[in-house]
Amino acid sequence: MMIVMKPDADEEQIRHVVERLESVGAKGHVSPGAFVTIIGAIGDREQIASLPLDAMSGVDKILPILKPYKLASRETHPDDTIISTDGRKLGGSNFALVAGPCSVESEDQYLRAARQARDAGASMLRGGAYKPRTSPYSFQGLGEDGLKIMAAAREETGLPIVTELMDPRDVETVLKYADIIQIGTRNMQNFQLLSEVGKVERPVLIKRGMSATVEELLMAAEYVLKEGNSQVVLCERGIRTFETSTRFTLDISAIPVIKKLSHLPVMVDPSHAAGKRDLIRPLSLASIVAGADGLLVETHPDPEQALCDGSQSLPSDDFREYAKEVRRYVEMTGRSVS
Amino acid sequence: MMIVMKPDADEEQIRHVVERLESVGAKGHVSPGAFVTIIGAIGDREQIASLPLDAMSGVDKILPILKPYKLASRETHPDDTIISTDGRKLGGSNFALVAGPCSVESEDQYLRAARQARDAGASMLRGGAYKPRTSPYSFQGLGEDGLKIMAAAREETGLPIVTELMDPRDVETVLKYADIIQIGTRNMQNFQLLSEVGKVERPVLIKRGMSATVEELLMAAEYVLKEGNSQVVLCERGIRTFETSTRFTLDISAIPVIKKLSHLPVMVDPSHAAGKRDLIRPLSLASIVAGADGLLVETHPDPEQALCDGSQSLPSDDFREYAKEVRRYVEMTGRSVS
Amino acid sequence: MMIVMKPDADEEQIRHVVERLESVGAKGHVSPGAFVTIIGAIGDREQIASLPLDAMSGVDKILPILKPYKLASRETHPDDTIISTDGRKLGGSNFALVAGPCSVESEDQYLRAARQARDAGASMLRGGAYKPRTSPYSFQGLGEDGLKIMAAAREETGLPIVTELMDPRDVETVLKYADIIQIGTRNMQNFQLLSEVGKVERPVLIKRGMSATVEELLMAAEYVLKEGNSQVVLCERGIRTFETSTRFTLDISAIPVIKKLSHLPVMVDPSHAAGKRDLIRPLSLASIVAGADGLLVETHPDPEQALCDGSQSLPSDDFREYAKEVRRYVEMTGRSVS
Amino acid sequence: MMIVMKPDADEEQIRHVVERLESVGAKGHVSPGAFVTIIGAIGDREQIASLPLDAMSGVDKILPILKPYKLASRETHPDDTIISTDGRKLGGSNFALVAGPCSVESEDQYLRAARQARDAGASMLRGGAYKPRTSPYSFQGLGEDGLKIMAAAREETGLPIVTELMDPRDVETVLKYADIIQIGTRNMQNFQLLSEVGKVERPVLIKRGMSATVEELLMAAEYVLKEGNSQVVLCERGIRTFETSTRFTLDISAIPVIKKLSHLPVMVDPSHAAGKRDLIRPLSLASIVAGADGLLVETHPDPEQALCDGSQSLPSDDFREYAKEVRRYVEMTGRSVS
Repeated sequence: MMIVMKPDADEEQIRHVVERLESVGAKGHVSPGAFVTIIGAIGDREQIASLPLDAMSGVDKILPILKPYKLASRETHPDDTIISTDGRKLGGSNFALVAGPCSVESEDQYLRAARQARDAGASMLRGGAYKPRTSPYSFQGLGEDGLKIMAAAREETGLPIVTELMDPRDVETVLKYADIIQIGTRNMQNFQLLSEVGKVERPVLIKRGMSATVEELLMAAEYVLKEGNSQVVLCERGIRTFETSTRFTLDISAIPVIKKLSHLPVMVDPSHAAGKRDLIRPLSLASIVAGADGLLVETHPDPEQALCDGSQSLPSDDFREYAKEVRRYVEMTGRSVS
Repeated sequence: MMIVMKPDADEEQIRHVVERLESVGAKGHVSPGAFVTIIGAIGDREQIASLPLDAMSGVDKILPILKPYKLASRETHPDDTIISTDGRKLGGSNFALVAGPCSVESEDQYLRAARQARDAGASMLRGGAYKPRTSPYSFQGLGEDGLKIMAAAREETGLPIVTELMDPRDVETVLKYADIIQIGTRNMQNFQLLSEVGKVERPVLIKRGMSATVEELLMAAEYVLKEGNSQVVLCERGIRTFETSTRFTLDISAIPVIKKLSHLPVMVDPSHAAGKRDLIRPLSLASIVAGADGLLVETHPDPEQALCDGSQSLPSDDFREYAKEVRRYVEMTGRSVS
Repeated sequence: MMIVMKPDADEEQIRHVVERLESVGAKGHVSPGAFVTIIGAIGDREQIASLPLDAMSGVDKILPILKPYKLASRETHPDDTIISTDGRKLGGSNFALVAGPCSVESEDQYLRAARQARDAGASMLRGGAYKPRTSPYSFQGLGEDGLKIMAAAREETGLPIVTELMDPRDVETVLKYADIIQIGTRNMQNFQLLSEVGKVERPVLIKRGMSATVEELLMAAEYVLKEGNSQVVLCERGIRTFETSTRFTLDISAIPVIKKLSHLPVMVDPSHAAGKRDLIRPLSLASIVAGADGLLVETHPDPEQALCDGSQSLPSDDFREYAKEVRRYVEMTGRSVS
Repeated sequence: MMIVMKPDADEEQIRHVVERLESVGAKGHVSPGAFVTIIGAIGDREQIASLPLDAMSGVDKILPILKPYKLASRETHPDDTIISTDGRKLGGSNFALVAGPCSVESEDQYLRAARQARDAGASMLRGGAYKPRTSPYSFQGLGEDGLKIMAAAREETGLPIVTELMDPRDVETVLKYADIIQIGTRNMQNFQLLSEVGKVERPVLIKRGMSATVEELLMAAEYVLKEGNSQVVLCERGIRTFETSTRFTLDISAIPVIKKLSHLPVMVDPSHAAGKRDLIRPLSLASIVAGADGLLVETHPDPEQALCDGSQSLPSDDFREYAKEVRRYVEMTGRSVS
């Protein structure tokens, strides 16, 4: 961390900053410059971060040098993290194609979707039993009944299931059924929830908040990793911008950026990003070649009857063709669908 | 809701849309146009919203006509909602000046801040016992111990206290101490938390999510109102944009926009919006004359020693002068600090 | 266009809107609804657009049904536009790989870059003689001398040249040298400039403004097309968002969105979008498979000596390998580098 | 400027950076740190900026210390700049209320508007003769005929006129009529235009680009100042964000931020920011108390008949009351309407 003093900062102010650094066991390396004096703070990152340096008199600004995350960083963990669940792998040379409806609506709907996903070659099943909805008047999910249906689908298809946890009080219930616990966009900075799933032994998929920076996403992962759970997957799902021709703006650059900064696998959800069915294919292929480790795509046996996200779901009939193309591009990049 | 059909939509597709509307008890009023056919959907809003109309073949787009919120709307409730707590009022001609530190750090720190706030004429006290922090390595708050300190401060000063609830498991604990329960920015779409505080009899202050639209903020209020709790206050605290000279961009227009759409009181948090102490004064005065019902401002007896947000806190010494100016502008708008 | 009246709009107000529509030769088709009355406006689009309908009393909002552009629309021109220049094609099954330095710095620098680009298989050369720079203290380009150097490079390599026009007073000068005239990001809504290049017979490449919507980009194209020049190419180059890990956020979805709405070819500039050399490759491959018709990439014989954009330029040595990979992916999508 | 080296940068790379700095007459002050080495670059700002430091091997990032603008900076010019034209002043304790229609439509319309503005106490008249319109099918302004009408209005009312210049070829024409030359939002980075108006002796009002940062706005001013014209006024008019309840988001914080960084006067255009008539009043009052030096407000004798921006114009009848309130708030801040 570098502390840039104001041009008119005096000796007393400089000394004061150094003393505060020393008070937490750190050191302040003073570099007088032609225009301004800079103090390099050296010591324990957390200790230094606890000081309100930018509130001290004479201080102009604070320039961080090191990343604020540690466990999520590729510097401290150069090898790709590979997530393993029920024999399916995600990360490294293993690409995961996760398919299924936005929400579990009924046993019939979900089992049909699950069979079609398996037949077309999906790696895992997705589906929501607890649904975060902008409106309190929209369908809120089937709760544990939905989880039971998902478990039945896993039983029949052999595919692991990915499902969202929204409330720390539901951790135990969700653990009974889910192979991968999803933390949704709106909960990316629900720090209690992140800490809770950090304490369990189950892979956690964190979706990027719709206005979260890449750094904030990595800090969310850090919350989980810090509690001891090292099986974390990140998911880009579009960010909020001024553009209205898509529901969100898929931040395709986030894939290579995160892969460089972190060892954690990165998935992409093209359905939520675009909000439109006909964009799923191009955005999926783009994500694969940009380096994504997997796709989370909404499919539905009959999108027109869907209780949510019908317009951004791929009809199961089209999914077979889509999955074939996904495999072709994944193989082009030297990997295979797990 | 209007359903705009594609230019080449055929009779069959139009009939199908109308039938689906009728299947949920609504009606479809077909208007053939020169270029496109439009179907007006009339009936129960929630029933219609449950249909995946935009996924039906032949449909080009859906244009909403009515607002998605009801209880938060000024149309259904023309008079200003006025919140009352411990003899202090908020809304209508009552302006609330809420002051105090970002977080409760110690009894000494908080009591000093509380006394100074009271002496300068604050209406209520703010302070965090549970702190949402981007980094898991930052100070996370004192928890219930912090709430006890706040209660002691209320005891001494007579001022009601506003504090954040982050976890549905802490509702009962927070209810023991808080006069107004704050739902933070990162939890604006934590729907479980919103539903929980909708079930209690205690005013709830909802901070706007950093990338939430005004409509989404009103939908968050709707979650609370729907459960029966009518004492909801909204708070603008800056949105995320490309501009980097401030921490967030205070959306000053949101104040008159919300006041027009809704009967709920609107507060402004200039400290978090700006992230810089010297912007608090101009943003506070601007908020008052733009129609805000209150201010939530960070003060600290010694910002340089603060464990969080020191650089955006007003030193308690400066707060007296600030509060005087706030009163002068509030009175200029024909209201008074409650 | 649909005019949605306020719930309490009266007969008089409705009649008034209809009369104003009729005053410009259009018709107003009144649909009384359960909640609100809707007036469908039918007639000449421009005539109707000239009316300040949203300022009329009783009017709640205006909902456009038709697109505001005509000539740029795929509806009026279903086939892909293919641009042809000096035997090189762009659009349809022809992919263009345009390479070269940010700015022409010297004859030696540019000719070296041009030869290396040609040897590696580039389709065209890029380079700036007039440079838009945020700072008046930065290198502003060599002007016509730079254009002459570019012409010499074309002479030697046989590759067409793409270069930016910034000032309507330079149209004739630029026409003497350029094969494709580029309109830069900052000039996307410089309507005078757009009209001028609409009057010449030379392909025009319009870069998307950094906060322009897709619709606004198509309207910029419409300005050129309206004047008679049908050879327009669009270019996505990243939009401005809150994310700071890249210089801009490449809006990858814009590619399929524009290809659906318009018949015009779409290129991508991954260098400016990312602002970082190591993102060029993944973003380029992603753009190809998402449907882009070409890439505009910055290369430099010695990026470290570049007078601008050095950090986002591909060293010419790396460009050969890059171009090979580009060809491989272009062929994978059933097209070829022209 | 500080150059932060990568953790694994070697001696050779560090020496190379220092040598490049020295090659342009600057110095490199090397500070080896516990984690990384930092090189402080000292010397002529422009010379150093010309080096592609971030493209050199071993360099991690560049951290600017000094502002990139000089002439616009308050550090180099501590006193407020006061603009004077035809006896009217703007800046310091002089507040300017500039009113008039979006565009000059006819002599009758404009003269009526001008008289009403004068009668209500406006300081200056605004109006567009050259209109930048998103659509080539919209009304583009009356050109020089419009300017003549504005001059006639000045003749009659004695009020100076502010009007937009869009094309460097029109500089001489506009100079014949305008008292203040406006550079519009879409031309904030039209550097040729900025340089041209830098060469004339006439005040220039620069509107902030809809996605320009405060720093970029100050750099646009620097382009004008650098050419010798010191009479520059800045204007905040709303920025582009995800929020759709207003046309743009008025960045109220930009006012105090700019006033601190620069000596130039800052105006606000609440009409374009909001896009809605009923927001003009609250946004105007908020701007005044936040420190703005003036307001640029759209008024029209009959908004319903306006050829542009009718829905965001204040009817002239309402303007009298509005102007009275503006004066009251301006006086409250210790200034007066000039």
